[in-house]
Amino acid sequence: MLTPEAAFAKVLEVARPLPPRRVTVREALGLVLAEPISADRDYPPFPRAMMDGYAVRFADAGRTVPVAGEIAAGRQVDIELADGSCIEIMTGACCPPGTQAVVQKEHVRREGDAVALPAEIAPGQHIASAGSECRRGQEALPVGTIVSPLAAAVLASFGVEIVPAIPRPSLATITTGSELAAHGEQPTPVQIRDSNGPMLAALAAEMGIDASIAMTVPDRFEDILDALAAAAEKDLVLIAGGVSVGTYDYVPRALERFGAETIFHRVAQKPGKPLLLARKGGQLIFGLPGNPLGCHLGFHRYVAAAIRRMEGKPPAEVYRGRLLQTIRPKTGRAHFVPAQASWSNDGWQLQPQPGVSSADVFHAAAANCYLHIPPGPVEITQGNDVEFSLFSC
Amino acid sequence: MLTPEAAFAKVLEVARPLPPRRVTVREALGLVLAEPISADRDYPPFPRAMMDGYAVRFADAGRTVPVAGEIAAGRQVDIELADGSCIEIMTGACCPPGTQAVVQKEHVRREGDAVALPAEIAPGQHIASAGSECRRGQEALPVGTIVSPLAAAVLASFGVEIVPAIPRPSLATITTGSELAAHGEQPTPVQIRDSNGPMLAALAAEMGIDASIAMTVPDRFEDILDALAAAAEKDLVLIAGGVSVGTYDYVPRALERFGAETIFHRVAQKPGKPLLLARKGGQLIFGLPGNPLGCHLGFHRYVAAAIRRMEGKPPAEVYRGRLLQTIRPKTGRAHFVPAQASWSNDGWQLQPQPGVSSADVFHAAAANCYLHIPPGPVEITQGNDVEFSLFSC
Repeated sequence: MLTPEAAFAKVLEVARPLPPRRVTVREALGLVLAEPISADRDYPPFPRAMMDGYAVRFADAGRTVPVAGEIAAGRQVDIELADGSCIEIMTGACCPPGTQAVVQKEHVRREGDAVALPAEIAPGQHIASAGSECRRGQEALPVGTIVSPLAAAVLASFGVEIVPAIPRPSLATITTGSELAAHGEQPTPVQIRDSNGPMLAALAAEMGIDASIAMTVPDRFEDILDALAAAAEKDLVLIAGGVSVGTYDYVPRALERFGAETIFHRVAQKPGKPLLLARKGGQLIFGLPGNPLGCHLGFHRYVAAAIRRMEGKPPAEVYRGRLLQTIRPKTGRAHFVPAQASWSNDGWQLQPQPGVSSADVFHAAAANCYLHIPPGPVEITQGNDVEFSLFSC
Repeated sequence: MLTPEAAFAKVLEVARPLPPRRVTVREALGLVLAEPISADRDYPPFPRAMMDGYAVRFADAGRTVPVAGEIAAGRQVDIELADGSCIEIMTGACCPPGTQAVVQKEHVRREGDAVALPAEIAPGQHIASAGSECRRGQEALPVGTIVSPLAAAVLASFGVEIVPAIPRPSLATITTGSELAAHGEQPTPVQIRDSNGPMLAALAAEMGIDASIAMTVPDRFEDILDALAAAAEKDLVLIAGGVSVGTYDYVPRALERFGAETIFHRVAQKPGKPLLLARKGGQLIFGLPGNPLGCHLGFHRYVAAAIRRMEGKPPAEVYRGRLLQTIRPKTGRAHFVPAQASWSNDGWQLQPQPGVSSADVFHAAAANCYLHIPPGPVEITQGNDVEFSLFSC
């Protein structure tokens, strides 16, 4: 049985970045750029006034000089600045030839058509010279940039509307389980409602992915096979339940019949030991535990890592923080304990929110991270540091 | 002029949580619950087998006993377990009356219709007793819970499909500036393309908000007034540009004519000093600097705080980390410096990515946070700790 570290490494090895597509800047938000983006011209394109005020000459510091004109932002400049005069100028406007500095409106005294300038004027003050922010042809966004709002501003400045970016994977979810009441029906005393389907949809939605196919099927070999066939065009398939060693756990056999290659099955961890990764061509298929917490951890730790890798992104951060409560693992396996991480001035503080079982999402719902507890049985006492991963970031 | 702290406090004071609405669980993802959610029945609803294996009696530990039947998940239980026998059982199934423990399939030796049980069986092992995770009527999700995927799983378990939650604010953006080339047109030598519109749309999209009205208007008083009127039904309006003291900065006057009350105008910070907050009835209106970095900081620090408050959420976290490079503030104002925060084992490391001006998004595009540098001119040397806020989390 693989360790969680070995299984994680396998996921990163098997998942591959998807081929880039050309998308709009709006669609590219949060995606990785597949080509570098370079400046179409100098930025700023002209010597730009950074303040509302007056374009001036050094020689006039401390003097009162007439205002020879006005330049608004976006206006063509048809005057030249000479000693003994100044020109009123707005933030964002092009400084006229001859400008040596811009003096802020607040730092002069206007007297009719003239202004009294301050005695000290620094060379080039409040002027952004042409090309000072970015030179024409300069690479402004390298390959691998995740398109953020600031990157969107850069792209908009350059007039770029379509960019080559690595898309998000397409996704199908399949939840299995004959103990599940059909949607909208009252469960019998020995049935429960499906919670994995809505949970997986929410986990995917947090990563910007819409599960365009979401199926619920009973624990029947043929039904699972049919569901796999229906999802054959998707980059990623998640099957929750039926993945363990029970008599009706048909998923491993169905995957074999489907022609998928099993990469691993079962991971030495709690919760979520019966985790399976298979591959068919370019498609990755995860078999996730039917137990909701195991299913959640399976997505959080392994599926999310596969998605990030398919999107060309590095793995999510693993942090360290201080335990606020002693943990006594009951198992020899590595243990991922739901917890509430909060930041205080000297670092992360971690309050465990252990469930009573790997089906217990009720206690875990207050958590925002998983503690990574190494294989025990070694008690980790309050005040010690442990690694953890935040739910969504 | 307000300090950044005083302006931030004003935003939190003026922004109010929006009235709750009834939304689907899917729509509720990331929203705050306005009412507590309680369990519709015990969870688990029955004593549930947590492993694939055999329901057994203590008295039979170490013995070989016949398998008296099988219980699959979701199946009604019509047999009772007696000493001297066992019943095969699947994960998620209801344990039959008389069950004292479940023994994992891997821990027995099956011999035809009988199994050899291990010598040691712990009371209640691998059984989740009815109500052990959550009792009927127990509050599982308190008021104020942000609906996460785990919370979605809890709601799905309870059969809750519609929840009362605090919605996201509706939003209009208005970008002003006569120096802006019209969309799709080549800018003249003294014009630039609008980058604030796409950037604000991206910032809002990161918070799950679609700017359903997005206008670009020239620096004309009447046009700005018309745009405000068109956005009158929105909870939140963002106007970028025209908010300073220049001759053509009509936003403050247009807001006055529109009947909005100015809460503050100008904040002692760099970038983004000409920041304005106004209110009309329940509508909040931010005037953001036209300089892209000032506009970005204005959204990141103030607009996002207003949105979180309107959504009933606490302010975003402020972290502390170690400076990797000395910062020499050039101004007496508080300074928000774009930086790259990365986590290493002993905490956050901060690499400043200062722009050359408050219009410089090109250098800032590599940043993922703002350092909060107190009013200078006090140098903060490499290795010292500073506060910072991450761009989006």
